Amino acid sequence: MDGFIAGLNGGPKNPLGDGGTEIHKWLYNQKAFLELLELGEGGETGKDNDIVNEIINRSGASIMGKRMFVEGEANWPENAPFHTPVYVLTHEVREPWERKGGTTFYFINDGIEIALQEAKQAAGDKDIRIAGGADTIQQYLNAGLVDDFTINFSPIMLGKGVRLFDNIDKGKFTIDIAEAVNSPQVTHLRYKLNNK
Amino acid sequence: MDGFIAGLNGGPKNPLGDGGTEIHKWLYNQKAFLELLELGEGGETGKDNDIVNEIINRSGASIMGKRMFVEGEANWPENAPFHTPVYVLTHEVREPWERKGGTTFYFINDGIEIALQEAKQAAGDKDIRIAGGADTIQQYLNAGLVDDFTINFSPIMLGKGVRLFDNIDKGKFTIDIAEAVNSPQVTHLRYKLNNK
Repeated sequence: MDGFIAGLNGGPKNPLGDGGTEIHKWLYNQKAFLELLELGEGGETGKDNDIVNEIINRSGASIMGKRMFVEGEANWPENAPFHTPVYVLTHEVREPWERKGGTTFYFINDGIEIALQEAKQAAGDKDIRIAGGADTIQQYLNAGLVDDFTINFSPIMLGKGVRLFDNIDKGKFTIDIAEAVNSPQVTHLRYKLNNK
Repeated sequence: MDGFIAGLNGGPKNPLGDGGTEIHKWLYNQKAFLELLELGEGGETGKDNDIVNEIINRSGASIMGKRMFVEGEANWPENAPFHTPVYVLTHEVREPWERKGGTTFYFINDGIEIALQEAKQAAGDKDIRIAGGADTIQQYLNAGLVDDFTINFSPIMLGKGVRLFDNIDKGKFTIDIAEAVNSPQVTHLRYKLNNK
């Protein structure tokens, strides 16, 4: 609620930073999420789960920043929770890293536009998800390359951390409300962007 | 969307700061708002207007900080848009200031709890509205004196300005979602607080 998508001191041993997992608490018991991580049967099947399912199903590839990858690399299970190609923005030169279940990480050294081109080729008719972190999301927003986004707005304040909408070049787009999906745990705010 | 409720450089000649009125644009054509300021007939009568009406009708008194008052004093019409007692937190000693239409401003020098006590006596069965600005809202939140709040979440980013949820003592309360009311112009996010 106070704009932070991760706490302070994030890293491989402290994924999402101090208090950061609290923001995503609503997610951890959704059926679609449990299935994605192969954490077992069960889980909630309400509107929150529908949103998670829809996002999984429409995503044909993901893009993420180096720090998000490094945090994930240390913590994702062997069957990484993407099941699609994932393009990692990094200066590191590294061979593709294939995981169980259809996730392959490709390491892109040529910037956000090349990563997007490669992701589009891989995704076919499906969408590209800019997974995070904040800096990567901001780069794509400021380049006018984001068509829509969903904020899962949790009733939590972190007080300190990494802000989602920092360093935004607000002259680059206007935002239209698509819908707000109500749930007792989290409000899903969906938007369409008009890039200039 | 990026957490600011007012822009930079706010003051009597620049109410709500640089770009700040943009956040409230949805409000300016609501029937209830036009009536409140006696700006004429007409205006929108949809869900946004229902929310404005409901907030006006349930408010028996308002509390505001000195800076909000100073901005308003220079800009409100003679018939100030409250029509209830308004308690202004200030170090200035000043006689009550009565305006047309039932608004009287009382200047409180003894802090937020005294202001709340006086407002409660005036409001009877109705609610007290903490009108703003951000610093006043934060003081009441951190004192555990807020029961519920509504954020009218506009699809606007200011980039710079005054943050609503700065300096929050997040150990003082937890927040439950009450509802999210959808509209094409603004999303009304309503919460209940559990004060500790």
